[in-house]
Amino acid sequence: MGGYAAPTHGRDVDKKITSKQVADVGEFGLIKLLTEGLSYDAQTIVGVGDDCAVYEVSKGHYLLATCDMLIDGVHFSRKTASPFLIGCKALACSLSDIAAMGGRPLFALISLGLPETTAEEFAQDLYVGIRSMCRDYHVSLVGGDTVRSPERVVIDVSMIGDCPKGKYVLRSGAKPGDAIVVTGYLGSSAAGLEIVSGKQSESDAERRSELIEAHLAPEPRCAHGVFLVENFEIHSMMDVSDGLAGDLGHICEQSKLGARIHADKIPISETLKAFCDSAALNPLKYALAGGEDYELLFTLAPAELERLTSRWPDMFEIPLTHIGEMDANIKGIHIISAGRRERPLDAQSYEHFRKSRERE
Amino acid sequence: MGGYAAPTHGRDVDKKITSKQVADVGEFGLIKLLTEGLSYDAQTIVGVGDDCAVYEVSKGHYLLATCDMLIDGVHFSRKTASPFLIGCKALACSLSDIAAMGGRPLFALISLGLPETTAEEFAQDLYVGIRSMCRDYHVSLVGGDTVRSPERVVIDVSMIGDCPKGKYVLRSGAKPGDAIVVTGYLGSSAAGLEIVSGKQSESDAERRSELIEAHLAPEPRCAHGVFLVENFEIHSMMDVSDGLAGDLGHICEQSKLGARIHADKIPISETLKAFCDSAALNPLKYALAGGEDYELLFTLAPAELERLTSRWPDMFEIPLTHIGEMDANIKGIHIISAGRRERPLDAQSYEHFRKSRERE
Repeated sequence: MGGYAAPTHGRDVDKKITSKQVADVGEFGLIKLLTEGLSYDAQTIVGVGDDCAVYEVSKGHYLLATCDMLIDGVHFSRKTASPFLIGCKALACSLSDIAAMGGRPLFALISLGLPETTAEEFAQDLYVGIRSMCRDYHVSLVGGDTVRSPERVVIDVSMIGDCPKGKYVLRSGAKPGDAIVVTGYLGSSAAGLEIVSGKQSESDAERRSELIEAHLAPEPRCAHGVFLVENFEIHSMMDVSDGLAGDLGHICEQSKLGARIHADKIPISETLKAFCDSAALNPLKYALAGGEDYELLFTLAPAELERLTSRWPDMFEIPLTHIGEMDANIKGIHIISAGRRERPLDAQSYEHFRKSRERE
Repeated sequence: MGGYAAPTHGRDVDKKITSKQVADVGEFGLIKLLTEGLSYDAQTIVGVGDDCAVYEVSKGHYLLATCDMLIDGVHFSRKTASPFLIGCKALACSLSDIAAMGGRPLFALISLGLPETTAEEFAQDLYVGIRSMCRDYHVSLVGGDTVRSPERVVIDVSMIGDCPKGKYVLRSGAKPGDAIVVTGYLGSSAAGLEIVSGKQSESDAERRSELIEAHLAPEPRCAHGVFLVENFEIHSMMDVSDGLAGDLGHICEQSKLGARIHADKIPISETLKAFCDSAALNPLKYALAGGEDYELLFTLAPAELERLTSRWPDMFEIPLTHIGEMDANIKGIHIISAGRRERPLDAQSYEHFRKSRERE
């Protein structure tokens, strides 16, 4: 400690001083920069880089830990979402991270930054949302911090979970020949975001409502994740938060494998199809580059998938879709579209598409 | 879930709608409002209202959980503190909360909101500070989140600890006749804040440096807390983060007792005395209303205190000071000043003093 007067205290002053801004490095570059060379103790089984960290709190007892910061105007908008749903969504992000490991949520901490002019009612309704998700998903809201934030509402949720049978699934465990499977439908959340933010319109009230709900009121797949991990040998898993292309890309990268997916098998809801048809949009773009679907994306051996598909419909209503295979002989993601040859998925164009949809 | 269109969804719509802003309710009022009637599961031993929550993760194995949100211009200032020290301080708040329960820190999650124009170097140095504290206090930095924050740097630290021998200490356990004890010195941090923010000046370089360091580079008392709880019967404990008057007030309130303190026993460093002498200021005000000292404030039976004072100097360099007694026959805090009668401590005036020192 000490040395408060020296702005470079504690860092290697010989290190080349860059004049880059964080915008130049990007989110993943920044995380790499900040966590490079981080050394973990023996209890930290998994550190930075998966949906949750895994910490062995006592022999064979694994805790899962995740945090998500949401800022008004960046991750949600008070103009388009009710405080109740903002509260729900803040919890949904962390719940989905726990689900993505096959874990069970235990407790949460909430830090809340509020401008002084925030209506008391807004804070109350936000907490009604937070508390309702805690109740629905059996999470104990054990503590928090409440501070003044001059301009914007800031919500940070930290969640701790555990692995009931000592099992958890990482992004890095996919094996060649694994079937790639996804729960539910993809892309609806992204379409819903464009509707609430006024970038697209949908005159059909029912469709409009369903797409917006997919965006504002996602349902994390906690029970599904636990069911998968407790009953099947799931090799790799994560949640779809940045869009299928980017997220499957993480599984490929961390498992050191490629993936081949079939465009016509990607699960797109009838509602999203109808919305895209009427607006002459490509639903595949929403599914591949969308994000915030909070569905589970996982891989397992084909024989296990057979066993799984026979049991799934008795357990859950949402569909389970086999969209492709992991392959050691290709690099990155290849997509096979109807009537077209297999081609590498151009992640860049989807990244651009995704960025152009950001709220600000 | 659902009902995204209804801003009042999930709340009792008959409830009287207030038009109050959060500034009208104050921090403690807001926490009460948001957490009132919160129901905890059987594993949540202590919820909102102490330095940490206590969660029984397996039989007799207690986890401690705390989070602190720090916002530029509210809790620190990039104008007066180096990123290294901002990082250190962010960790210090949470470490001190764990120390205040007598616990041992295990792991931390960090959410970081950064404006896009933040220099890469700032983020790096911030993390050098964070990582240096993690190393010094044996905390594993297991994960985090990095997001864009349009205007301000926002740091949220969540920390999980445990209780090595299954013992932890709450604010609520003080008993009548308990000695009130505090570690280290009080008030220096508050004086340091006034110096760095330009509200006061100190021409003596050594004094200036010591006071600023007390503010910017506090040392959480983790080893001290564990030593106290493992070896002595500590009835109640917390850390001094809002000033002695307010914090001892929490012990009084939660233990349903009063407290009598002796003004001339409150530990004030020679440096703070000299600073106050030269500026014609009252050091007691800094100690009582200051805050961010991150010392431990605790109560124990007089016989235990005797045992403790005989062992303490062999273990630690910082002083231990007996400043008063818990008393069932008085309400709130009474103070005995030299040459003056015992009188109730007027918390209000200290609250005002504290507020007038806020950064914005």
